[in-house]
Order: sequence, then structure tokens, then C-alpha cells
Amino acid sequence: MDRSIVISLDAMGGDHAPRVVVEALRSARLQIPDIRFILFGDRNAIGRYMDDGMKDYVEVRHTDQVIASDDKPSQALRRGKKSSMRLAIDAVRDGEAQGVVSGGNTGALMAMSLFSLRPIAGIDRPAIAGFMPTMRGESVMLDLGANAVCDETNLVQFALLGADFCRAVLGRETPSVGLLNMGEEELKGDEVVRGAAERLRAMDNPGFRYHGFVEGTDITRGVVDVVVTDGFSGNVALKSHEGAARMVAYTLRQAMTASWAGRLGAFVARGAFRRLRERLDPNGYNGGVFLGLNGVVVKSHGGANATGFTSAVRLAADMVRDGMVGRITRDFEQAGFKAEDPQPNAGNA
Amino acid sequence: MDRSIVISLDAMGGDHAPRVVVEALRSARLQIPDIRFILFGDRNAIGRYMDDGMKDYVEVRHTDQVIASDDKPSQALRRGKKSSMRLAIDAVRDGEAQGVVSGGNTGALMAMSLFSLRPIAGIDRPAIAGFMPTMRGESVMLDLGANAVCDETNLVQFALLGADFCRAVLGRETPSVGLLNMGEEELKGDEVVRGAAERLRAMDNPGFRYHGFVEGTDITRGVVDVVVTDGFSGNVALKSHEGAARMVAYTLRQAMTASWAGRLGAFVARGAFRRLRERLDPNGYNGGVFLGLNGVVVKSHGGANATGFTSAVRLAADMVRDGMVGRITRDFEQAGFKAEDPQPNAGNA
Repeated sequence: MDRSIVISLDAMGGDHAPRVVVEALRSARLQIPDIRFILFGDRNAIGRYMDDGMKDYVEVRHTDQVIASDDKPSQALRRGKKSSMRLAIDAVRDGEAQGVVSGGNTGALMAMSLFSLRPIAGIDRPAIAGFMPTMRGESVMLDLGANAVCDETNLVQFALLGADFCRAVLGRETPSVGLLNMGEEELKGDEVVRGAAERLRAMDNPGFRYHGFVEGTDITRGVVDVVVTDGFSGNVALKSHEGAARMVAYTLRQAMTASWAGRLGAFVARGAFRRLRERLDPNGYNGGVFLGLNGVVVKSHGGANATGFTSAVRLAADMVRDGMVGRITRDFEQAGFKAEDPQPNAGNA
Repeated sequence: MDRSIVISLDAMGGDHAPRVVVEALRSARLQIPDIRFILFGDRNAIGRYMDDGMKDYVEVRHTDQVIASDDKPSQALRRGKKSSMRLAIDAVRDGEAQGVVSGGNTGALMAMSLFSLRPIAGIDRPAIAGFMPTMRGESVMLDLGANAVCDETNLVQFALLGADFCRAVLGRETPSVGLLNMGEEELKGDEVVRGAAERLRAMDNPGFRYHGFVEGTDITRGVVDVVVTDGFSGNVALKSHEGAARMVAYTLRQAMTASWAGRLGAFVARGAFRRLRERLDPNGYNGGVFLGLNGVVVKSHGGANATGFTSAVRLAADMVRDGMVGRITRDFEQAGFKAEDPQPNAGNA
């Protein structure tokens, strides 16, 4: 294998698969000239969207088996061994690809990635990280839903994972890290976040700057580069942001169309509204990343269009090029997390 | 005492006290002709904003002592016995007023209300409830931060409290209730929400309709009338909504002012933008309500203007007129929650 980046893909995952997947490969290749792909899925369905030029950088491997969006993770693990999703993951395990991207069932992708790639030594629970748009650019937040209940150690580990991810994809050398809490005061919140805060403050040269507690309003203010929380609160925060943004957009549309002046103003300012839409378009921030595994795994939003799927592919390529997995492995070793440590929460996702 | 509604107020709580408090009483009286007030605080500071006509419906009671915004709840309890906040609460305990409104320190108000008014028989942990603007009007959400960690029983009780509150202030006779979770699937989330879901489904004639799980995006969709969650997630959701709305407003402002066409369009459509601002103005939704105590307690946002404080006063009056506290008392008795029940989480806020 040459030194180009190789990404494997589940061609069949997502609402508009395999069309948007194939289209995304074409545009990703324009942006990253040295990238190559291994594409798993139905050869006929894929072939409909491929052009001849793609044969230089896309290798298609046929399989009939597909993970459905409502398959349970345990079912997918047992019965999906030849699925497009599983084969794409296994290509990373086998060293054929350095990262995998799928728009399919999140639970199945997590379970199969965990099984096939295994956590990096010393990591109790891998996490899902993603981007949050802020008034100052972008921040990283994790966990977005892999672990409903977390202990202190999980949160401390998420801080390390999030900082390495932020460095790899946003290029911030010493990211600031905040713990999501009910308020900024030291006494608020439950024992887990307070305990994690103490340990983060006490860490010696962790490669990030521990900021302290942050509140829900601080996320979009961009107060920190990395927001750390358990999967329940992280999922609630992420989806609350989505819901609120949609609500404001809906109210704006209603206000602008309720009068002739509103409609005229909206027409005059249509360029500004287009910029607003682009800035808030979730396809620009597409890609939840599974952090803590021996390999790069990106989950694209199931409803993503080709632009969104391209973002997810670029994200995977950025992590591969940065050597993020190797860096996480070294950072956990240096922080004293060992594979032999007891894992009191294992399997309690 | 005649049968008019009497509300006691902490004149000294909030960033713009006592000015906005006095102004709010004037406008509340215009909207609710039979309302009267007992106002606790610095007689001189209050007097500066009072007019002669207000003497008919406002009784001022002087005290020098004020709870500071950074006083710890335990300090406030021990040393604030003659504070404007505490005296206003005690007026409800003593039957002089039926509800209290304060824009002061939330932790102190909660601690002193809990101590002075006591929980209604059978209620383990009172909660803070508030309104969320949705695409279909308004919903109620609780707990917004009183209890970081909750058990099944707490969540079941919050459902009862939230339904009674929703009935009192939004007039919905049989409100729908949803449990906030990481996803709508029955298997997601931690054991506490799953256990609470089972108990809510099994309840016989609870006075509300149990909908099932809701996600963060469902809050602004208005999928249910009452969203139930623990105080940590509720606080994260509330503040994430605030942060996202501010972010969209900020991005909109940036987009509209970046070009001449944007600025012109914004001018032409200025009426539409005013309607948008009004619709999203947090002062229209002001007031966190402490539910589960023997008396009506409303916490106004500290930064509220007179309009916001008036909303908080009207909210208190609505709950008093509805007889909500009596209804909660009956509902908890009927649901089999008894004062003698063990309270495994007491004091573990």
C-alpha cells in the first residue's frame, strides 16, 4: 500500500445511500488529491452513480447484506458479519484502510466498531464527539450519546480524547476544556462532575488547558474549545440546540411572510438570508466521531446530502493525516491509564 | 382579609430592584384589578418609585436585610431571617399572602421556601418548572435545576406536579407528559428514566396523558405539554435553547449588516423583525416556579425588566386563582404518595 490516505465506506447507510455516498467520494477526491476509497455494498446500486474516472481511486467490494436503521446493536453484531457496515469497519482493523465512514444505524456502528477495532489501551468507554457551531467558530462536544451514565474517570478520559480530536481537526494546539454543569459555581452539579473537575485541575501537563465548569449558554458562546459531558446531557444539549435553531428559523419565516413589507425585505436581503442558511446548515458540521478506538470511525448523519457526506469523509481524512489515533494512544499511556485497570463500567452503556 | 389575591414580594431581588418590582406591581394591578401586594425591602429605595395611587393596593414593610446574589443557601438560611426575601416567603407561610415572587438568588429562595413553607405531604423533592416557547405555543419543563440527581419516584412526582402546573397556567385539562431521553426508543437512556417510564405508563387515571420518551429536538416542536427530566438535564436543555437562540440571532444580525442589500432589506422588513424579537423575548416567558411546596413561589429572572417581572407576578396570580396548591395536595394523596414514605434522597440536592 502506498502512503495515500485510504478510507473505507459503508455505501448502503443513510437515507440517500448509495447515491450521496458516491457523489461525496467524487467531491472529496477533488479536495484531497491523494485520497482513495474502498466502498462496500450492492455493486449494482453503486454502479448506477459511478463514472469511469472513479475507478482510479474507488474500489467497490460487493455484499448483499445491509444493516437496517432499526436493527438492534446486538442483532447487528450477531447477524451482520457480512454487512456493508461491518466489512467497512473490518477493512480498518485489517489495515487496508485507516478510517471508516458510515451514514447507517449509530448503535450498530458503535457496537461493531467497538467489537472489531477494540478500545485503545487504558480507555474505559469510547465516546461520540461532534462539532457545535459557536459565535467564535466551532467547538467540539462529547459524549453525544454513547454512554448515558458516566463516572469521573470517563469524563476525565473524554477530556483527553476531545482535546486530541480538537487538535487534529481544528488545529488548536492547546485546546481549552470545560465540564458542562448546571452553573459555573464550584459547588453546583452532582458528585461525578465535581470529582472530575478536581482530577482535571490536578492533571500534570495534559496537553489541554482545563477551564472549569461551563453552562448550556456557554456552548454557543464558544467559551471553550472542548465541552465534556456524559452522553445523556450531551445528547440533550445537542438536540436542544438543533430544536432551538429550527424554532428560531421557523419563527423568522413566519414573521417575514406575515406582511408585504416582510416579504419585500426578505427579497431585497435574499443574499443575507442565503448566508444565514449556509452558516447554520447542519451539513457543514456533519459527522459524529467515535473516539477511543484503534481506528478512525465517522458516523455521518443519516439524512446528510452529498455536501454533508463529503464533510464526514474530509473529517475522517483529517484525523488520519494528523495521526490522531497514535497520539491518543501515547497520551493515555502518558496519563497513566493502563489496559490492566479495572473497568467498573464496562458493558454498562 | 377579603377574597382578593394577595402576593408578597421581595422588593430587593434582581439586577434592577426595586425599580422594576414597583413598576411591575403597577402594570400587574392594571391587568388584575382585584390583586394586592405586600412589598418587603428598603422603604426609602422603594418609595422613590411608588406613586400615591399605589397605596391602595401595595403595603410596604421595611427591612434593611438583603440576600446577596452570591450568598450560599445555607448562609441565607442561617443569617437571612429578617431579609426581604425571607419575610416575603414567611408572609405566605403565615397566610397573609398566597404567593411570593422574588428576582433574587435562586438557591437561597429555594432553601428558604423549602424551610418555611415545607413540601406538600408525600412530595420527596420539590422542582423548578418553567415555560419553553415551541412552534405550537408553549410547553412546561421541569426540573430546571433544583435536583441534579433524581430517582424514578422524583420523575414520577415531577410528572404530576408539571401536569397540575400546566393545567393551572396554560389551561390544558389533560396535559400530555413526556420523559426527556436520548432517543425515542424504549431501550435508550439510563435505568432511572426507563423505570420512571414504566411507572408512568402503569398509573391509573393520573390526570395527564403519558406520551412516552421525547428527545431534545421535540421540546421546541411542542410534542408534549409537559417535559419531565432531572435538574441537570433540564438545566442543560433550558440553557442550550437560550444559547442557540442567541447564536441564531447573532448570526442573523451579522448576515443582515454585512451588505447594503441586507441592511436595506432589514429596514424594509423592520416590522417583521420587531415581531420576531417580541416572539423570542425571554421576558414574555419569565418565571421559574417552585412546585411541591405549601404555597406559590415564583422566581423571576434576575435580569428581567418590568414586563418580565409583571409576567412573573401574573404567573403567581394564575396559580393562586386556580387553587393549584390544593389540587397538587389532593393529587398526591390520590396517587398514594404519603408523608410517611421513606425519602431516600432527602437532602441530596
